This record gives sequence, C-alpha cells and structure tokens, in this order.
Amino acid sequence: MAPRKRILSGMRPTGRFHLGNYFGAAKNWVELQDEYECYYMVADYHGLTSQPHADSFERDLIDLAADMVAVGVRRDLIYLQSSVPEVAELFLLFTMVTPYGWVQRVPTFKEMARQQPDNVNMGLFSYPVLQAADILLVKGDAVPVGGDQDAHIEMARETARRFNRVYGKLFPEPATLRTSTPKILGTDGKQKMSKSLGNIVGVTAEPEVIRKQVLSMVTDTKRVYKSQPGHPKSCNVDSLYKVFFPDDWEHYWELCRKAEMGCLEKKQILAERIVETFAPFREARAELSDEAVKGILARGSERAREVAGGTVTEARQAIGLLPPL
Amino acid sequence: MAPRKRILSGMRPTGRFHLGNYFGAAKNWVELQDEYECYYMVADYHGLTSQPHADSFERDLIDLAADMVAVGVRRDLIYLQSSVPEVAELFLLFTMVTPYGWVQRVPTFKEMARQQPDNVNMGLFSYPVLQAADILLVKGDAVPVGGDQDAHIEMARETARRFNRVYGKLFPEPATLRTSTPKILGTDGKQKMSKSLGNIVGVTAEPEVIRKQVLSMVTDTKRVYKSQPGHPKSCNVDSLYKVFFPDDWEHYWELCRKAEMGCLEKKQILAERIVETFAPFREARAELSDEAVKGILARGSERAREVAGGTVTEARQAIGLLPPL
Repeated sequence: MAPRKRILSGMRPTGRFHLGNYFGAAKNWVELQDEYECYYMVADYHGLTSQPHADSFERDLIDLAADMVAVGVRRDLIYLQSSVPEVAELFLLFTMVTPYGWVQRVPTFKEMARQQPDNVNMGLFSYPVLQAADILLVKGDAVPVGGDQDAHIEMARETARRFNRVYGKLFPEPATLRTSTPKILGTDGKQKMSKSLGNIVGVTAEPEVIRKQVLSMVTDTKRVYKSQPGHPKSCNVDSLYKVFFPDDWEHYWELCRKAEMGCLEKKQILAERIVETFAPFREARAELSDEAVKGILARGSERAREVAGGTVTEARQAIGLLPPL
Repeated sequence: MAPRKRILSGMRPTGRFHLGNYFGAAKNWVELQDEYECYYMVADYHGLTSQPHADSFERDLIDLAADMVAVGVRRDLIYLQSSVPEVAELFLLFTMVTPYGWVQRVPTFKEMARQQPDNVNMGLFSYPVLQAADILLVKGDAVPVGGDQDAHIEMARETARRFNRVYGKLFPEPATLRTSTPKILGTDGKQKMSKSLGNIVGVTAEPEVIRKQVLSMVTDTKRVYKSQPGHPKSCNVDSLYKVFFPDDWEHYWELCRKAEMGCLEKKQILAERIVETFAPFREARAELSDEAVKGILARGSERAREVAGGTVTEARQAIGLLPPL
C-alpha cells in the first residue's frame, strides 16, 4: 500500500466559525482527514499581519481550535503554528532562495494592502513565503484550496523546485487539491462573509444569535410586498437554501417566485434549519474547556514538531549550516 | 555601578580575515570587549543571501571564528547566528510590525542587488529586518559601525520604537557607536578590499602569502622609473604605511617623494612589517583545531541563547501568543 499523501491547511484565528469558514474550509478538512495524512493549522503567526489586540488574540485562537474540534476535525491533526517555531527558521531560509520579483508579482499583496492601508507591513508582503514554509515544513504533497489561493500554492511549488535545484532534492512540489466550496456571501448579500465586516452567520453560536443573524439578511430588494413575486435567483437567502435544503430547495424557490411565501418566513425556516443542522456541533463545542483545547493544541503541535524538526535539520544540512551547536 | 551597556556586532563568513575585516571591525571588537557586554556573531544566516556553496560554507565560518579568536576577541563572546535560531522567530515577528515602505527605502538593497543581479532574493530585501532582530534579540544598547551601516541601525531603532508603541515597552533603541576605521583599499588600489574581488592582504595567512599579496599592490602609476619622484598622497601603499608605521610613516613618505626609495622596496618593507605585526595572530590561529573552534562557538551560542530565549518569550507574551505548548 502506498503511503497516504500529506496535506496541509490552516486558518487565521479570528474567533468562532461562521458559515464561510465552515463551508469554505473546515467541512472539507473533515472529509479529507481519513484519506490523507493531514496537518491542520491554527495560523496565529499569519494572524499577526493585521496586528490583532493582544487581549483578544488568545481568545480568538482558542475559539478557532475549539470550533475545529466541534465540527468534527480530528483532534490529533490540529496544531498551533507558533508552537512549531521551526516554521520561522524555514521561512528565514526560504527568503534566501525566493527571488524578490516572485513575491512582488503575487496578486494578493495589493488586495491585502488595500484592506489595511494604514498597516502595510513586511508580514503582508512576505505572506506567501511563510505559507510556502508552512506547507513544505511538513513536506505537504497537496493543499486543499478554494479559488483565491492559487498564486500562493504556485509559489510554494516554485520554492520547492528552486530549493531542490540549488541544494539538492528535499521537498515535494505540492499540488493544488481543488475542493468544492459554495460561495457564501455575508448577510448583506454583497460581500464575502467576514467577521470584520460584521455580516456573519455563526456555526456553533447560540440559537438566538443565529436566528438574529439570519433574520438580518438582506433579501430581494425589488420585492416590497409579500404579494409580489420574488426573484430567488438573485437572493442570498435562496443561495443558502441550496446549501441547507439540498433536496427540496426548489420547492421553496417556487414558493418565493409565486409569492406564496414571504421573505421573513423563509428566513425563519432557514434559521431553524441552521440551528438544527449545527446542534451537534454546538453541543460538542459546549463541552470543550479552554484547558482541554490547549491540551489538544499541545499534542497536535508535538506531532507537527516531529516532522518539522526533521525537515529543518535536512534543510540546514543541504544548505551547509552546522547542526545547532 | 551601572550595568555595562550591551553591544552586538557581527560579520558574514567569507573565510579568513583580510586587512579590511581586521581594521574595519575585529580590532574594534577587541578594544570594546571589556568596557561593554559584547555579543560578536558569525553571521551565517546573513551569509546565505549570496548563496554560498554548501561545501565551502562550513570551512568559511570556522575560519572566520578561528580568526576572531586569533586576533584577540574573547572566546566567550563569539557565537554562531544559526545556533541561536530564536533570531528567526524574532525576525518573523518583526516582519509584522515593520512597514513595507521602510524596507523599500533602505539604500543598501539597491547596492546589494547590483552586486548580484542574478540573485536578487527576499533575503537581500529583508536583510535590515533580520539585522534588527540580531540586535534586539540581545537587547543591544549600541552597535559599533563604520560608515555604511547607518541605515540599518536606524531601522533597528525604528523597529524597537514601533514594537514598544504597539505592544508595550520591551526593547532599547540601539545607539550607533561610531568607531574609527581606516579606509582599507584592495591591492588594486581602487576598490574596497574584498575576498570576492581577489584584492586582499591576509592577516593570519602564511608569510609567503602575505608577501605575495603585498608585492602585487598597484602603486603610483605615474612613477615609471625609480628615479622619478613618487606621489605618496595618492598611493595605496603609503596609506598602509600610515596604518603599520604610525610613528615613522612620514619618513617613508619623504623617501618616496624624493625618489630615494623605489616602490618595490617600500612594498617589501611593508610586507615584512605586516608579517611581523600579525605573527602572534598567526601563531594563535595555528593552535586552533576545527573542533576547538566548534566548541568555542557552541559555548558562545549557549550564552547568546540564554538571552535570546528570554527576549523571544517576552516578545511573544507582549504580542499575545501562547507560550509554546
């Protein structure tokens, strides 16, 4: 039997999951975790690019890890990036083989810089180099991605190729593992769901919170009265029906189109469905103490460090550095 | 008694000392080492920016460390940068608080990029961020510098200031410790002395090597015959007389100006003086085995790691990262 391929994925800690986090990443992690040898990272170093407040940062990263466990990610696969500081050394070593021009050409930098024009730091600029280090630290064979991370995986591939050429073959060239991720818009119906935009619907949140978030969703602005036929094709609520009512969304679609059900009622039904779907996650989350989560991260980080230590030792040797004295 | 101020300095490993290394840095290190609490670094991570060959890199860094000891640098003060990998983590943390624009404005990048146009890597670009990490890792109060490093020390000061403002006071703002360094040109009389330019005069090299190097020096090109008066003011050999004959260089200056001594003879006298001056260094160097040098680096690196570990722990805490799990 061939050894399982290794994959690496991660998320920046911004607190508890919203629908975008869950359907965009975590759900796929759960689906992939038995077929592949997985490393799932709470990317706290990456989170520093937006200079989070020290007081809330710990809360956010524990909440992320807890929600990962709650939605079914295997505990032993989860680790904390900053508890595997070997990544910092590989990052430093990779700066030496990464052409400046490559980093300049990565399109996400401009996008990220636009989001925080007052804090365009070197961490933002060198983000793809750190991401290459994350992936290659565990010698990842593949990285599950939605659409917008292609340039970063390509950079990791090029970094592996270049290191191998200069110093001898050491790293695999990680492939892109295309996963299906429904596009989840925020409650405003316009932008990507994002905590910083305040347009989220929670996953493990309390039912009352989820209900309130769903009821705040912007619906069909052209439908002023319930008696008017709706336009489900352009309505964000109907998009979520496709996700949460995979078998009978068309039924609700027709009710809207024929003005037989109002927006409010559709949102109420959706809210209850979301609350019900995620009830097991919410219960699992409630059982996890902060201490338990830290223990999970500690054990997962130890597992990651075993691989990481070996990789850094090999990389140092290839480069000609002395073994640490 | 006030605690002694702490200073940090270092050199990239390019092999054994030449006159430029000795008079430009190491001599000052020896002079400062009792007045200050010193950390003197073999900067092997920095050396990677020019992609040294793995086979010769170990030789070069051992030769550098051995020559440091041979010329009188105290053994306990010397450490190997890559044996204190905490610097990589502080470097990563510093990328998060260093504005991209600061790094872009550092003038040395363009100069370094011109020297190796085929290898303009991210390590070259982020060089001053790593240098700030070197300095602040040991909470250096001052950095001894010649002329061309000012921009880097300024960057370290700005990094300290910014980190302190964002996360609370942790780092001193390192001062520039201006040291007197004679300008040492290469044997070509035109460029800075540099191993890669092949224009060096050694320090701990064998007498025969030093003689050959000194005799290859370009002298007064306007003086074709010995009977013509020389122009010591523009002659590189006479510059070195000022360094090696501080008390009677004017005597030799006159001999040249009056055509009473030829260039060859002046170089022969200089060569013997250099050989004689450095004889104790050469002897000290000959007594150091590679194993002894590695032991010195190991002990010095342990000393540096004690400080480094504390600094990184404090920095992580200030930022809000968890203690390593």
